[in-house]
Amino acid sequence: MSLIHALQSALGENAVLTQQADRARYEQDWRGLVNNPSLAVILPKTTAQVAEAVKLCAAHGARIVPQGGNTGLVAGAVPILGPDQVILSFSRLRAVRDVDLLSDTITVEAGLTLATVQQEAVKANRFFPVSLAAEGTAEIGGVISTNAGGLQVLSYGNMRAQVLGLEVVLADGTIWHGLSGLRKDNTGYDLKQLFIGSEGTLGLVTAATLRLYPPVATRASALVGIENIEQGLGIFTSIRHAAGNALTLCEFCTQPALSLGAAHTPNGRLPFIAPAYLLLEISALEGARDPREMLETVLMEALEKGRVLDAAIAQSERERLDFLALREAISEGELREGGAVKHDIAVSLSRLPALVRAVEDLVARTYPSLRPNIFGHVGDGNLHVNIRPPAGQTMADIANHKAAITRDVESLAISMQGSFSAEHGIGQLRLLGMAAHKSQTDLALMRAVKQALDPEGRLNPGKTIPES
Amino acid sequence: MSLIHALQSALGENAVLTQQADRARYEQDWRGLVNNPSLAVILPKTTAQVAEAVKLCAAHGARIVPQGGNTGLVAGAVPILGPDQVILSFSRLRAVRDVDLLSDTITVEAGLTLATVQQEAVKANRFFPVSLAAEGTAEIGGVISTNAGGLQVLSYGNMRAQVLGLEVVLADGTIWHGLSGLRKDNTGYDLKQLFIGSEGTLGLVTAATLRLYPPVATRASALVGIENIEQGLGIFTSIRHAAGNALTLCEFCTQPALSLGAAHTPNGRLPFIAPAYLLLEISALEGARDPREMLETVLMEALEKGRVLDAAIAQSERERLDFLALREAISEGELREGGAVKHDIAVSLSRLPALVRAVEDLVARTYPSLRPNIFGHVGDGNLHVNIRPPAGQTMADIANHKAAITRDVESLAISMQGSFSAEHGIGQLRLLGMAAHKSQTDLALMRAVKQALDPEGRLNPGKTIPES
Repeated sequence: MSLIHALQSALGENAVLTQQADRARYEQDWRGLVNNPSLAVILPKTTAQVAEAVKLCAAHGARIVPQGGNTGLVAGAVPILGPDQVILSFSRLRAVRDVDLLSDTITVEAGLTLATVQQEAVKANRFFPVSLAAEGTAEIGGVISTNAGGLQVLSYGNMRAQVLGLEVVLADGTIWHGLSGLRKDNTGYDLKQLFIGSEGTLGLVTAATLRLYPPVATRASALVGIENIEQGLGIFTSIRHAAGNALTLCEFCTQPALSLGAAHTPNGRLPFIAPAYLLLEISALEGARDPREMLETVLMEALEKGRVLDAAIAQSERERLDFLALREAISEGELREGGAVKHDIAVSLSRLPALVRAVEDLVARTYPSLRPNIFGHVGDGNLHVNIRPPAGQTMADIANHKAAITRDVESLAISMQGSFSAEHGIGQLRLLGMAAHKSQTDLALMRAVKQALDPEGRLNPGKTIPES
Repeated sequence: MSLIHALQSALGENAVLTQQADRARYEQDWRGLVNNPSLAVILPKTTAQVAEAVKLCAAHGARIVPQGGNTGLVAGAVPILGPDQVILSFSRLRAVRDVDLLSDTITVEAGLTLATVQQEAVKANRFFPVSLAAEGTAEIGGVISTNAGGLQVLSYGNMRAQVLGLEVVLADGTIWHGLSGLRKDNTGYDLKQLFIGSEGTLGLVTAATLRLYPPVATRASALVGIENIEQGLGIFTSIRHAAGNALTLCEFCTQPALSLGAAHTPNGRLPFIAPAYLLLEISALEGARDPREMLETVLMEALEKGRVLDAAIAQSERERLDFLALREAISEGELREGGAVKHDIAVSLSRLPALVRAVEDLVARTYPSLRPNIFGHVGDGNLHVNIRPPAGQTMADIANHKAAITRDVESLAISMQGSFSAEHGIGQLRLLGMAAHKSQTDLALMRAVKQALDPEGRLNPGKTIPES
């Protein structure tokens, strides 16, 4: 029996897409940069079906490309050019298996969208904190497999910090039963850590038990004008000392970046002009001290002491969302105004000023006609250092420079002991960075782990680890 | 050249202990249960010396037993009976390599005690939250390698959550340079996770970069009388919703357990008698709402509604410490009054009432003369379910029952999808539990990872994973 027939027989005919027209949207990545053919797209409904499909693919020598919402930015969920690959979509594994209010946990299947998990938490009078632009489409299995970050990592941690247990189909089709609502379990190696952030190369996440948090009652936010990132770090430290984990957002934007956001927000305007901005948000539980009052106290003192240039505290929920919209529109603005060479780098917070200066120097010296567009999660040391084409031009006009710009920007981060991919991962688009920046010891360890869990290379071939 | 001479030549003569009298205190575990001979105890001073020693041991066919403060409860840091083993003590790697106040990180070598790390944090006007009874002796490398927990996991997470980067000597003597102050780094597999909690079987932690937190300004605590653990979970949920992560302690003690603590505390007394107790502590940063006021509000309402039996809020720092002393004296009380068969189990919070009831039933039915002593970190679902000999008797009198009691108690936790070793780990004393309770898939995955990182079994032989 052919693989296709075997899969049809195991999963049902309507769960195996073989026509090019049906496969097309699964084969192309979110950014439209990669498009390679698959043998078929399969849509199992249960963990048992996932396991059966993996065994059938193995028996027929086909590899598996796991795919969630296909919203990743590094083409990690679409095929590479090369061996026979079956795309395994998790979109039909959508059950909420359990909500446990005493344990503050939710157990969900991989295909549920991140937004749905957030909504399920709200229904249960709880809060699920991972939040990112693609949350309406991104599926929780992918969010786990890429260890996604987003806006509130500062306070709650990234996706890794939310995972209490996993159910995983291994490379040979065995199901690893690691679902658990346990907060503590030191019985041998913490196996779930292997599968979080490994981009489906070590196992296929089919379900997860996640932490829930008490609901946030009120949020206060402020837009603060600063001279430079040093001032920004100063005020970040003050507010972090006053608010601790209640400081749930601390975003940095240079003036050009936030202006771009404002230009692409309906009725968007900057409340004042400054060389750079911090967007701060404090979250408070029911009955806690009024977070707006806390922001006012700290910012008033900072203004009096000349430690910030200006500050606007949102006076209403509407105004808070308006501030956030300015920040969130920056990427959209880039896209509409010619695109950008995008980077997602991180350094320790104390090296951020040197990094920003080095990027500005690099562009001024080597690419004087280009426009740096710098913004990001300053509280995590994570900046999106994007480089825009000259005004009126597009990415096509600077295509020749793209690889060199990326090499130069990533090298700056690496020279400061930083990361060249803080939250977006590797997939197939950042493999050059792995080869260029990771040590031989790093790569040897990763290859040894891959060999241990997937010796025949069946799972997501050509991703995460460069060929040796 | 013999191994001993080679080690002496590499590390200096005074760094190689070969006399039985010098080796003795390294060969016996903290609890005095295990005592097997080593070839030598070595005391390297630098990471380079650790790497060199590992290479020499490999060349001579000797295995390495890494040892920190030797305070573990499962004999994970002392030799097994069998192959040639060299104990590698980290106690001379004691440098604070870096304190970074903007990044809120500290980078320390493995041999620093946990208490010293806490003190270094205080000197820097920061807070390091991992705290446990042995902190004056336990060394940070061991605390990482065992993923230690302790009193404040509820709010800050266990040791894994504190580790931002590691430096590790691998099985072949290669140094893996993974120190990092990065909050986010999605460049391939998160290798540091392999070494946290793997009890030195995959690599030897020589240094770590750890998170620091804003200093805590005030703490308020209350001792609450409850009918049973269901009531305790109800009040826990209320306070967690009001305080969130500011609820830094939530300990449960049955009446016999806390009375035992009181009896072994100088001037110790229970402020009131109840079937069981919760000890709650809320921590507040500078300028936050008064935590005592928050406790008063929640507990007053709970008293009025009959959801707790009684409550005493500490009226001074002295009284807060007195409450804590009652809880902390329980283990000491057990030891002085004949000992106990000790267990460290966890279930999800919603299963705690069933677990407590099942343990009480088990003892009443099967071991009616024995006395259950139940207390622990209820907010983490982690209870120390200890079983004491009859009044006036000691452990020696119930030695015949010990293995059966442990099997029965651990099986109860496992039957509720729990853990049989929530925070103490496996070492060599809990290997029977691994063989009995872990699935074949779990064990196969662990063996594959061990084989990948330490194919010749050089690192901490006979620990963590049972032989197949």
